[in-house]
Amino acid sequence: MYEHIQQAAYKANMELPKLGLVIFTFGNVSAADHDLGVFAIKPSGVAYEELSPEKMVIVDFDGNTIQGTLRPSSDTKTHAVLYKHWGKTVGGVCHTHSTYGTAWAQSQRDIPIFGTTHADYTTVDIPCAPPMIDEYIKGDYEYQTGFQIMDVFREKGLDYKEVEMVLVGNHAPFTWGKTAAKAVHNSAVLEAVAKMALLTEQINPQAPRLKQALINKHYERKHGPDSYYGQS
Amino acid sequence: MYEHIQQAAYKANMELPKLGLVIFTFGNVSAADHDLGVFAIKPSGVAYEELSPEKMVIVDFDGNTIQGTLRPSSDTKTHAVLYKHWGKTVGGVCHTHSTYGTAWAQSQRDIPIFGTTHADYTTVDIPCAPPMIDEYIKGDYEYQTGFQIMDVFREKGLDYKEVEMVLVGNHAPFTWGKTAAKAVHNSAVLEAVAKMALLTEQINPQAPRLKQALINKHYERKHGPDSYYGQS
Amino acid sequence: MYEHIQQAAYKANMELPKLGLVIFTFGNVSAADHDLGVFAIKPSGVAYEELSPEKMVIVDFDGNTIQGTLRPSSDTKTHAVLYKHWGKTVGGVCHTHSTYGTAWAQSQRDIPIFGTTHADYTTVDIPCAPPMIDEYIKGDYEYQTGFQIMDVFREKGLDYKEVEMVLVGNHAPFTWGKTAAKAVHNSAVLEAVAKMALLTEQINPQAPRLKQALINKHYERKHGPDSYYGQS
Amino acid sequence: MYEHIQQAAYKANMELPKLGLVIFTFGNVSAADHDLGVFAIKPSGVAYEELSPEKMVIVDFDGNTIQGTLRPSSDTKTHAVLYKHWGKTVGGVCHTHSTYGTAWAQSQRDIPIFGTTHADYTTVDIPCAPPMIDEYIKGDYEYQTGFQIMDVFREKGLDYKEVEMVLVGNHAPFTWGKTAAKAVHNSAVLEAVAKMALLTEQINPQAPRLKQALINKHYERKHGPDSYYGQS
Repeated sequence: MYEHIQQAAYKANMELPKLGLVIFTFGNVSAADHDLGVFAIKPSGVAYEELSPEKMVIVDFDGNTIQGTLRPSSDTKTHAVLYKHWGKTVGGVCHTHSTYGTAWAQSQRDIPIFGTTHADYTTVDIPCAPPMIDEYIKGDYEYQTGFQIMDVFREKGLDYKEVEMVLVGNHAPFTWGKTAAKAVHNSAVLEAVAKMALLTEQINPQAPRLKQALINKHYERKHGPDSYYGQS
Repeated sequence: MYEHIQQAAYKANMELPKLGLVIFTFGNVSAADHDLGVFAIKPSGVAYEELSPEKMVIVDFDGNTIQGTLRPSSDTKTHAVLYKHWGKTVGGVCHTHSTYGTAWAQSQRDIPIFGTTHADYTTVDIPCAPPMIDEYIKGDYEYQTGFQIMDVFREKGLDYKEVEMVLVGNHAPFTWGKTAAKAVHNSAVLEAVAKMALLTEQINPQAPRLKQALINKHYERKHGPDSYYGQS
Repeated sequence: MYEHIQQAAYKANMELPKLGLVIFTFGNVSAADHDLGVFAIKPSGVAYEELSPEKMVIVDFDGNTIQGTLRPSSDTKTHAVLYKHWGKTVGGVCHTHSTYGTAWAQSQRDIPIFGTTHADYTTVDIPCAPPMIDEYIKGDYEYQTGFQIMDVFREKGLDYKEVEMVLVGNHAPFTWGKTAAKAVHNSAVLEAVAKMALLTEQINPQAPRLKQALINKHYERKHGPDSYYGQS
Repeated sequence: MYEHIQQAAYKANMELPKLGLVIFTFGNVSAADHDLGVFAIKPSGVAYEELSPEKMVIVDFDGNTIQGTLRPSSDTKTHAVLYKHWGKTVGGVCHTHSTYGTAWAQSQRDIPIFGTTHADYTTVDIPCAPPMIDEYIKGDYEYQTGFQIMDVFREKGLDYKEVEMVLVGNHAPFTWGKTAAKAVHNSAVLEAVAKMALLTEQINPQAPRLKQALINKHYERKHGPDSYYGQS
């Protein structure tokens, strides 16, 4: 019954080391089935080379394990909150401690939109959620991380359907997408954009943000109603 | 009839991920036949591992698809403009979002000529075309990108036969050459030179540009009438 | 009799080049058997591709070779001191000249705790032992390096069971753990954390250290009595 | 008659791309036989994957081709000068445009000795020869590059037997050693040390040079009369 999401989650997790986004167990991906109200997620602390589709743990949107003998990723509740509150648009969630994305998260700065590589994915700076208040940290931490992400989107007036990535301050990136594979794709894009943004500021500390006309153009050619990127 | 340029374009595109110049679909290469007045180019948004020679789309120098069922790269019109206006010298065009080249483009600075690695390829700073005016962006954007490139060459008095690379401000590099393979070669060189130039400024913010006698010497030993680099 | 630690040391040493932590012979790992009072360590100056389990040299905790025809690593006495004085908790020791860890050691700064990647491993800045006094350098240098490491732990009030890594000022990192494999794991984590810390300061020179509540949370979820990371 | 040096030069050249020191044809290695008064060197502009031992060109110490149909590396005369004037100690010479070494050369700064990684190889800053005077550049450039290297050693009072590496200002590194393999080894070490030195200055702009007692200790344990590094 859950094989399709276990396969999707397995494949997506195995992409992380290939894309250079993780060492050891520094990341986890999940794949949801919104009709069944569950998602498949990496077991906690298991090395990628020891994973198999059937080891993916099945969890519901409140974070309860439905099937599987292994403990799910310690970040499971964050995934659950996003699936529950953002709904069907989010079919996959990815979390890594990729080097440049994590450095921006640690620096507590949004990643400025400097070029078309960034604009091909989103029209705004990649938001960095401020560190969680102590009360929440001591409570249900991973559950609150989900709300920390949703809060920054609400405060900045962002749409999670158009901005599929976020930095959690002092922690690391989370990304999502229609599928687990797309969530992983977005993590790799975020890492590339994060590296380019730091280099841009090093080359020219006064580098201006991308001008609005270019932001609109690049986003629309990939995502607008008259998009002409890719095969349709 | 078009197999030779499809083969050349296919091989050249497949070099991009091997050389570490692209992830996913962040780049495209084309190969032209000026007698036939067409070029073969990567289809848009197709992953490199799914490419094959026959998937390369045949396009004329006005950007019209001549053969192929897939949509050509969204940057096709930029390639077309360069082939049409610069003529037979340009047999291949390459566009990537390589990390360091793109960071320089985002910083809107020319890459200063700091050493002989750079001078082995060109005697001037690698030019960065200023961002396009809004009117053109809203119009035929990729077509205008071709003119944006030609404009910066005219304004700076550069010869596209001697300087086979450019940064498009806020966007990323374009390179060209006698063949598609040479265009890709130039993209890898630009990326190496771009990285070294940033490191040079970090090591010594007062690092002087290369002196003229060395610029001339290195360029002439590779490209001059008495060149003695390589096998002739 | 020593096969089990030779195997462990061999496997652990072979991980170093795979993890990108060493070139040539820039590192060494040992595996101890505290009941036998000995450890197996890489022979000095032998390339990784020429290693085999039986080439691992058996040394006692005073640094005397017990078995083996090859000379043990020149850093052997440092390993010996840590096994002798810190006892059974330390089952493996790893030393590399990994790029970012070594750069921090050369800069003579502790690595600040900026994020949860760091806090998943330890709750404090990674300590950098100040350079050794000249008298000790001229004496039994590698032996004194062991005391240099223990001294900085004592002076800073750190527990080697909770902080399994150190920078030796002007030199390079040492790490340890319950097994040789864990010591190597810690070296890779230190290198990742060292790189992220430098990038964090480059992105935001005023980046604050991680707040205490987050430090505690991340460490406890992995190491505390109610830890819920990994499979137990 | 020349097979032994052709084999040595071939193997050494093939190491360059494996060690990440070159792309395309950005480097060349030679192997000398001082009894025969010749050396084998990479042919100019030939890709590494097309090399074979018999393609290595045999050249005498005045730079004349003795055997081979291909044109030797354009840097051949620089190699010849070092073999002729420095004699039997130099059995191999290596030249690359490796990224960090070249950036230091372009910045026209010596690489400061910051740590033991550097001291394991040499006790002084890695010297950077100032750019050549215009008169020499216009003359026999590659021949003069050899003297440019020897001049900086004489001016700084350095011994080429103890310091087997140099940066040629605005150009790139040259290294040498008893064999071609050792020359390549030194190029990889120089690149690692060059990267660590830049990172060290970025982490701590006031980082002090390594103190003399540590310089002496590390160098002597590897190279002194009572050396105890490696197998003897």
